[in-house]
Amino acid sequence: MNTINEKDLIYLAGFVDGDGSIIAKFIYHKDYVKTRPYQISLTVQVTQKTTRKWFLEEIKNIIGEGNVNTRKSEMTVSDYTLVGPAPVCKFLKQIQPYLRLKKKQANLVIRITEQLPNSQDPEKFYELCQLVDQVSALNDSKIRVVTADIVISSIKEALKEIVPVETEE
Amino acid sequence: MNTINEKDLIYLAGFVDGDGSIIAKFIYHKDYVKTRPYQISLTVQVTQKTTRKWFLEEIKNIIGEGNVNTRKSEMTVSDYTLVGPAPVCKFLKQIQPYLRLKKKQANLVIRITEQLPNSQDPEKFYELCQLVDQVSALNDSKIRVVTADIVISSIKEALKEIVPVETEE
Repeated sequence: MNTINEKDLIYLAGFVDGDGSIIAKFIYHKDYVKTRPYQISLTVQVTQKTTRKWFLEEIKNIIGEGNVNTRKSEMTVSDYTLVGPAPVCKFLKQIQPYLRLKKKQANLVIRITEQLPNSQDPEKFYELCQLVDQVSALNDSKIRVVTADIVISSIKEALKEIVPVETEE
Repeated sequence: MNTINEKDLIYLAGFVDGDGSIIAKFIYHKDYVKTRPYQISLTVQVTQKTTRKWFLEEIKNIIGEGNVNTRKSEMTVSDYTLVGPAPVCKFLKQIQPYLRLKKKQANLVIRITEQLPNSQDPEKFYELCQLVDQVSALNDSKIRVVTADIVISSIKEALKEIVPVETEE
């Protein structure tokens, strides 16, 4: 990750406020333990028509990390994505002072990245799930399949199977 | 029109590159003379959900001109618009050095504003019409009803009616 100069940071803040996404979501992994099958995924994304892929490469060069890919399902569209708690946190901490529209999303995602190391504690993990929901709510996400409620319910169900609740007979 | 400070210009350049529009188009006026019924309209536009109308007002305050309106056809959407050759030219000249994606559109629209005073000359007007088309082509405009060809053809038709072409009998 580069230390980005102030002018590039201000420009990127404008661009991300206008057309970028600061995303927190749950991803289901069937090979994860049943009591914790969801991963919290953090992403910064910028999308352009593939004819302007050069611009996404420019963003990648400025930031010094991330990937540029053309969508397999829609070859005319390409994405720059920066994925994972460490790079996302480092980038958002740099850009955060200059954001005007998506500052709340950035602050929430920074909080999530900082608290992820404690997420083995179920209480902490539930708190993080609520923060993920708050980011989604701010993003006017249209399609949100997995909410904090779904994640937490699935974990509670899995725990019941392992430690069955005693019932009176 | 304010003289905008550099940091605001860089931010706005990022925002306009990401989610703004630099538009040149033809508007038909039925009450204009038949030989020149189309006006060249120049606009800088930023659109947001109405819940973020405050941000459009902030842009208006930074620029010191323009209008913020909620769409009558779609109350959840609002627009900031800066309309007319003089304000559009002044604003684009300030922001142009910082644009990275829409610099060509800005340069073309600045050229149009500068040549508009000579547009009474048909040759000049036809040239301007081609520049309008070039701006639209850069903007990946999906719906473009009036092209330079349509405008120029309609003018030639109107001129024929006034000065009929002699035909052999």
